[in-house]
Amino acid sequence: MSKLRGFQKLTFTYEALQTWFDILQVKRCRDVSIALEDGFNRILAEDVVAQEDLPRFDRSAVDGYAVRAEDTTGASQQKPLLFRLTEGDEFTDTAHREAKQVWTGNPIPKGANAVIMLENTKKLESKIEVWTQAAPRDNVSRRGEDVKKGEVAVQGGTRLKPYHLALLSALGNVEVKVVEKPKIAILATGNELAKVGEERGEKQIYESNRVMIDAMCAELDADPLDLGLAKDNVDEIAEAIELGLKIADVVITTGGTSVGGLDLVPDAVNKLGKPGIIVHGVALRPAMPTALAALEGKPVLVLSGNPVAAITGFEVFARPLICKLMGLKKEESRPTVKAKMTRKIATALGRKNFVRVKVIQKNEEYSAEPISAKGSGNLSTMTKANGYVIVPENREGLGEGEVVVVNLFGEVETVKP
Amino acid sequence: MSKLRGFQKLTFTYEALQTWFDILQVKRCRDVSIALEDGFNRILAEDVVAQEDLPRFDRSAVDGYAVRAEDTTGASQQKPLLFRLTEGDEFTDTAHREAKQVWTGNPIPKGANAVIMLENTKKLESKIEVWTQAAPRDNVSRRGEDVKKGEVAVQGGTRLKPYHLALLSALGNVEVKVVEKPKIAILATGNELAKVGEERGEKQIYESNRVMIDAMCAELDADPLDLGLAKDNVDEIAEAIELGLKIADVVITTGGTSVGGLDLVPDAVNKLGKPGIIVHGVALRPAMPTALAALEGKPVLVLSGNPVAAITGFEVFARPLICKLMGLKKEESRPTVKAKMTRKIATALGRKNFVRVKVIQKNEEYSAEPISAKGSGNLSTMTKANGYVIVPENREGLGEGEVVVVNLFGEVETVKP
Repeated sequence: MSKLRGFQKLTFTYEALQTWFDILQVKRCRDVSIALEDGFNRILAEDVVAQEDLPRFDRSAVDGYAVRAEDTTGASQQKPLLFRLTEGDEFTDTAHREAKQVWTGNPIPKGANAVIMLENTKKLESKIEVWTQAAPRDNVSRRGEDVKKGEVAVQGGTRLKPYHLALLSALGNVEVKVVEKPKIAILATGNELAKVGEERGEKQIYESNRVMIDAMCAELDADPLDLGLAKDNVDEIAEAIELGLKIADVVITTGGTSVGGLDLVPDAVNKLGKPGIIVHGVALRPAMPTALAALEGKPVLVLSGNPVAAITGFEVFARPLICKLMGLKKEESRPTVKAKMTRKIATALGRKNFVRVKVIQKNEEYSAEPISAKGSGNLSTMTKANGYVIVPENREGLGEGEVVVVNLFGEVETVKP
Repeated sequence: MSKLRGFQKLTFTYEALQTWFDILQVKRCRDVSIALEDGFNRILAEDVVAQEDLPRFDRSAVDGYAVRAEDTTGASQQKPLLFRLTEGDEFTDTAHREAKQVWTGNPIPKGANAVIMLENTKKLESKIEVWTQAAPRDNVSRRGEDVKKGEVAVQGGTRLKPYHLALLSALGNVEVKVVEKPKIAILATGNELAKVGEERGEKQIYESNRVMIDAMCAELDADPLDLGLAKDNVDEIAEAIELGLKIADVVITTGGTSVGGLDLVPDAVNKLGKPGIIVHGVALRPAMPTALAALEGKPVLVLSGNPVAAITGFEVFARPLICKLMGLKKEESRPTVKAKMTRKIATALGRKNFVRVKVIQKNEEYSAEPISAKGSGNLSTMTKANGYVIVPENREGLGEGEVVVVNLFGEVETVKP
């Protein structure tokens, strides 16, 4: 009955996360080789080392004429120098000035070391006038200038962006070894929940957490799996979690952390084995009734049924977990912006508070308007906000005009001055 | 032969974009109804209006006892008041103090208007002691408090994030009408290009642009289609573009904008019809040889073959175009951060310059280290950078210590002080 009187002891979030990770000894998921073209947003499993220089030959950076720089000494528009045009891949006649027409990207002939841009030349039958001096390497992309053979082109643990793929392609990688997407099984619990589009009892509400957690997993490019809805029944919940442990790397549940004074999901978890629940009740608002568990060496995250608390619990616990499972070099952070609080707000001392705010940009100034701290169950506080401020445990609120760091989950709104 | 001497006239980027859009009269793509669970990251086609109040009944925000607030006047731990427990959905006995046990989310019985938290009560058989006074609405989530019936829950033109999906689910939406993903056909051109993994001529290089542009489209959740590689041949290029116009909403090409003094892709475009090329040569660095075209009412974007220039051209022209085709309320911007330039750099007056930088956070300070302005063809300048600074046309560079706005395309690096 302890939950009836609230949690006896709340664990600080960093401590909760640390304990959970220590017991789990989280390892990143298996590696898998995939076609480079499927690599966008995936996490590279290991360093990719360049197997050749890039570019693999000296090449022209412009349209023009390859020359020996030393041959151009003294050339100017007033005193053009004449160069004989050649076609070969090598300058052989060091006694005379040679030039070879090259287009951007063409290899520089052996013996040449600079390129004169077209606009600084004039063509005369089999010769050209050169109107300008060149220094060695002028307008030449040197072999290995982009990446040298043997260098790490892209580090393991990197999320592959368009330019990473381009670089790996240019280096001739047909396949890449990436980390498998962690499979996240999602279960929503609660007698009060009805599936959208289905018959609803008078006291039932349409569920909202499954589609939301599913999308939060997809946002990180993890692989969400659906365990459906379970009633407030320990056996039914345990059965669903058991299935989740079979098919997934992580099980996330919502609801049933403190229902009518009963801890249905925690009870179901503990019924399934050891260590079961590791932490229950965290110093986090909203998301206090979150529980962290481990079964069969896999993490089980027990989130509140309150959707905003579920988002917060996911953000604080699932996000770092999934980043670790993915083998990311470091946890991916949301973009941040510094903004001025438009009014003061009070928060609970001893809790990490996630305060939803709407950031507005006017001129070069950013302001953060807190979105109703009341009604943490209200999803519209999320859709009206575009970020959150984390108020630490040793603060009792934020002052009006205080400059805070906002973690953005939506676009900043711009207001014309 | 005009390209041999450089472009006669460069068009400013904003003017180029405006002209292109004016001629195209870009409209957003068709609408399509999809299951809500497939809605993540899609763009909502129209406002979704709440068909009922959310919540649709007054419900308890806590575990406790529903009461009439006025019955609690004077209650305290020293002077508890006794309430009779009832089970019904309505308080009928106004002559006496009634209380009904409720769990978080339960409907409040008719006649009750507040909930006393469990910890402020004590149960005694069929009665309870109430130890605290309540004001009307205390611990009650009021009907319609989240969203009222008839209100716009989520605006058309919104990219659906996890919390939008949750709200739409809670409101009973099984399907959502979203904008179809714009189909973007991508063609790379150039005799120098070899497909990754295939035989390569001595002067050939592995291509890198197709996989990159493909991923840049996917990043915006557009639908990339592959037109393959074309040789430097006007007919071959024209044929591929023609196919692209049949199967896609937009055609994007790379390379052949200024090859050996010939404008192969612009020529191919102009061969296919009117208006063809609208702008060729923009005051943008890198990406000067970009061309903007229209054929059969569809946009054709002719990007440089230089990968970094192609990225820049995509960023400046394809990104706003795709956002418009998707019907986004406003162009999505990259996250920004203000940072101090670690050294001065020179840029070309009269051009919009995209300067790649690496942003490093140390303590609360952000610094931006320019990544070699030389070698705009070098992809490693992108993989080493995490953002770009836009230096406007009326500037000739950035000063050391100058505070600039960086558009981030990668994670900020954090350095321990």
